[in-house]
Amino acid sequence: MSSSCSHHGLQASQYTILLFLSISLAFFNVEATVHHLKWEIKYDFKSPDCFKKLAITINGLTPGPTITATQGDTLVIDVTNSLLTENVAIHWHGIRQIGTPWSDGTEGVTQCPIQPGDTFTYRFVVDRAGTYMYHAHYGMQRSAGLNGLLRVLVPQGTVEPFEYDEERLLVLNDWWHKSTYEQAAGLSSPSFEWVGEPQSLLINGRGKYNCSLAGAMDLCNEENSECLPESFTVVQGKTYRFRIASVASLSAFNLEIEGHIMTIVEADGHYVDPVIVKNLNIYSGETYSVIVKADQDKSRNYWVALNVVSRKPNTSTGTAILNYYPNHPLKSPPTIAPVGALWNDTAYRVNQSKSILSHPNYIEAPPRTTDRTIILLNTQNKINGHMKWAINNVSFTLPTTPYLIAMKNHLHHVFSQKPAPETYDYENYDIHTVLSNPNTSSSNSIYRLEFGSTVDIILQNANTLSPNNSETHPWHLHGHDFWVLGYGKNKFDPKVDPKNYNLVNPIQRNTVPLHPYGWTALRFRANNPGVWAFHCHIEAHFFMGMGVVFEAGVEKVGKLPKSIRGCGEAK
Amino acid sequence: MSSSCSHHGLQASQYTILLFLSISLAFFNVEATVHHLKWEIKYDFKSPDCFKKLAITINGLTPGPTITATQGDTLVIDVTNSLLTENVAIHWHGIRQIGTPWSDGTEGVTQCPIQPGDTFTYRFVVDRAGTYMYHAHYGMQRSAGLNGLLRVLVPQGTVEPFEYDEERLLVLNDWWHKSTYEQAAGLSSPSFEWVGEPQSLLINGRGKYNCSLAGAMDLCNEENSECLPESFTVVQGKTYRFRIASVASLSAFNLEIEGHIMTIVEADGHYVDPVIVKNLNIYSGETYSVIVKADQDKSRNYWVALNVVSRKPNTSTGTAILNYYPNHPLKSPPTIAPVGALWNDTAYRVNQSKSILSHPNYIEAPPRTTDRTIILLNTQNKINGHMKWAINNVSFTLPTTPYLIAMKNHLHHVFSQKPAPETYDYENYDIHTVLSNPNTSSSNSIYRLEFGSTVDIILQNANTLSPNNSETHPWHLHGHDFWVLGYGKNKFDPKVDPKNYNLVNPIQRNTVPLHPYGWTALRFRANNPGVWAFHCHIEAHFFMGMGVVFEAGVEKVGKLPKSIRGCGEAK
Repeated sequence: MSSSCSHHGLQASQYTILLFLSISLAFFNVEATVHHLKWEIKYDFKSPDCFKKLAITINGLTPGPTITATQGDTLVIDVTNSLLTENVAIHWHGIRQIGTPWSDGTEGVTQCPIQPGDTFTYRFVVDRAGTYMYHAHYGMQRSAGLNGLLRVLVPQGTVEPFEYDEERLLVLNDWWHKSTYEQAAGLSSPSFEWVGEPQSLLINGRGKYNCSLAGAMDLCNEENSECLPESFTVVQGKTYRFRIASVASLSAFNLEIEGHIMTIVEADGHYVDPVIVKNLNIYSGETYSVIVKADQDKSRNYWVALNVVSRKPNTSTGTAILNYYPNHPLKSPPTIAPVGALWNDTAYRVNQSKSILSHPNYIEAPPRTTDRTIILLNTQNKINGHMKWAINNVSFTLPTTPYLIAMKNHLHHVFSQKPAPETYDYENYDIHTVLSNPNTSSSNSIYRLEFGSTVDIILQNANTLSPNNSETHPWHLHGHDFWVLGYGKNKFDPKVDPKNYNLVNPIQRNTVPLHPYGWTALRFRANNPGVWAFHCHIEAHFFMGMGVVFEAGVEKVGKLPKSIRGCGEAK
Repeated sequence: MSSSCSHHGLQASQYTILLFLSISLAFFNVEATVHHLKWEIKYDFKSPDCFKKLAITINGLTPGPTITATQGDTLVIDVTNSLLTENVAIHWHGIRQIGTPWSDGTEGVTQCPIQPGDTFTYRFVVDRAGTYMYHAHYGMQRSAGLNGLLRVLVPQGTVEPFEYDEERLLVLNDWWHKSTYEQAAGLSSPSFEWVGEPQSLLINGRGKYNCSLAGAMDLCNEENSECLPESFTVVQGKTYRFRIASVASLSAFNLEIEGHIMTIVEADGHYVDPVIVKNLNIYSGETYSVIVKADQDKSRNYWVALNVVSRKPNTSTGTAILNYYPNHPLKSPPTIAPVGALWNDTAYRVNQSKSILSHPNYIEAPPRTTDRTIILLNTQNKINGHMKWAINNVSFTLPTTPYLIAMKNHLHHVFSQKPAPETYDYENYDIHTVLSNPNTSSSNSIYRLEFGSTVDIILQNANTLSPNNSETHPWHLHGHDFWVLGYGKNKFDPKVDPKNYNLVNPIQRNTVPLHPYGWTALRFRANNPGVWAFHCHIEAHFFMGMGVVFEAGVEKVGKLPKSIRGCGEAK
């Protein structure tokens, strides 16, 4: 594989980039293009599910505009914050930001938030083709509507290991009528108000709430054109690539296209050994491409059905329409929308997770051994009566001064210098029972990794504070992809389980589910200089402390742009 | 009058104060005390009128804690922003901030907003006894609940020109169930959604909404103890000073204590030649002290009634209870609450405004002549279809870099250097008709005043964009008090009207109403070095551009504390 680089787009006058690493395995487009986007972030009233509420929009849209670029291109995105009193930051989920860790958009980790009235420029190379997403990474703003799809095409002439005629794009989301302020205040209050199940499921920002259930009838109007269903027009006999991203705040989804099988061919920018499924389980932060052949009766339309799994559903099926030309795009299918997989069939979901393996022609085998193993026990806890999540009994908090700035400027006092805990007492801890003492403490301590080393992460699930309950947590790593070495039931045994790791053809990705009462084993190379978040992608869970931070090679990071400063001790 | 100063409290280590001006005419307490307060600003669910919504609180309270200090004391207030993603700034309304213009708390004018996680310290001397208030001065946060009373006592041994046995405190407010985000987004949207009349009127943060009108019944509970009425216990025969502040977002209020007359004795920190009234008109940003004698039948309680005037009321009377000991504090009076003055009796309100004059023993006469007269025409306008307010056809906007920092650092490019317009075409403009072309433009241009000069301001009202409509605008000046030289009907005539100015015993204050279709004439000395906002205190009106900014003697301002920086070009 070639690793030739074209860096035309990177010599921005306002940035001084001292370091480029050629560690990417991707092709770079020799004729790299610089895409200059201008985005205004503001609040607008929207009725995505017929219920009118404030949403955070990009240039008036939620989901925001789909970004399309070609591998090797540079994206320059001027983000103007027109929220009134609120700051913002945007994460480019799946883009590793090699050489530009300050453009990762993670408030508290890689940058200060963008203040009202300011324009911040994100500038980075999209160095690998695939399906990605972007979304706010500050407070709970992602759930307020600041999200969208990022599509990176292969360079012209490059052949992908599957064929299709056209593409269709799906952004999947769950939606609440309460503002994210109300959600966050509820989560933070001593009495604890959980966000609850979503009011609607959205496909490309469109859903349908039953307005007769709405307290304030004047806010809900089922005739509003904003909540007409999304329709994907297809022509019988043609083949389609559906690029799918879940920006969900909470829900694990099952996606089914009535009467059509899907072939999974891409996960998080990596080609998959094709898997044929009736429906696709997709967790928050994951992206997939599936191939769908329009091979059914063309005299009718079909449902695209989005259902909640893993949590007991209390939300109607989200629906869009697969429209066979020349039927009317909004003609209702004559059937009832599929209900998808059984919500509590964990084995079904684990098996589908296990089936996602690297395409044989694109295998990049993981290192045979690891330099370090970190076991992360996921538990629900309390601090002073407030509900929290903790990793190895530490509930994560973000410092006021972002780590990247703090470390480059040797501001050791702005976060705990005590190393974050490497494991938990796995010999004695019973993951199947409710903690007898749920009290824990919070910290902003981090893991410092040796640059270039190989690191294994074992995500270990456990019972929550409710008896007989363990949840699904989709964990997302910034700045890297990891190999998924294995999934297991019950407690991970560090002596036995590594023997069964898949070191032959594991998929690489950036987001992976930790299934109920199970474990998930990951391996990655700490070869991207910077400071990187690794966290549960359920927005409320990260807000309640479910995350960690890795540092590696921060001394190799080039001079930080001044624009990321402006908060805490980085004013 | 003495003007001796005690500056003990000002030598804060983090501030370098180079300049003290002894221009204050107030007494200073020789034994000045430093009051150190620690405030946490956050969102909490509150039910002030039985309807549960998010409010911005100080240490869990809205209104916030009443500050009590003695003239000459220093207040040191550490404000920690625990809002999740939102910045904040707090204005100390009525405190002139002599020598400390950076502590005025006006976002965009005197400081950058305080970011989440940060603690900002306000430090200033309360140099004149009186009744004041504090409130957020950023976006529309005041209306979200961030407000309270600031009470400055006379030094021990100082006799005031009235007597009373005890004090009672009243913070008056109007209250909406929509969030201030929704309000602001509605005001900013091209379709324009006006905030509408308030759902409730609050006395000390307590009102009562008729829950049967609430769409979402689960949010409204009339049995909630948070919305029990405020009760002021009095003992028959005793005399009470009611200190009253209106932090209202929109409404002009009429306050009446059933069966009791009030004697107005203080306005905005200045002693008033006593005025006996049946009820008090009080505009947003104003404070009063009234003396009330408990001289009625002690076998029952009486209503304290708050009604909307000037706008057609669509809100129930706000009520509290004047409780004669030993009746139960919450025993309902046997009567119906007073409805106050007729809402559209402008003449009644103008006459009461005119009756507020300086106490004869405390007259500080204004300069006989002025150095400059600025006439400010108040009009409703449109910009690209958005509804705005404009002053002399300029709709005001705040710069991203605060004026005070910009001017001290000679950042001339961060705001328009074109002088703001000195007047309007008063010979030809018809203030009684709707503008034929309502389009205008916005600017952040300001008025630069010669330091020490005397400036007259003529506020000129006009018809709004609705036929036969002119509104009441309470204008508030930061950093100074002004003399109220006169009120007039129709168009101010610069040749004739100044001859009728009251130069004998005008009241000094910081907030004054501009009545419908009328004018109000003010005079002040530009003798406080700094940059100062002057604006309509109706929160939505200032948000829509109804304000100006004055600079005077900025070169005399001491070295600015670093803590006010952190935004725009002041990072």
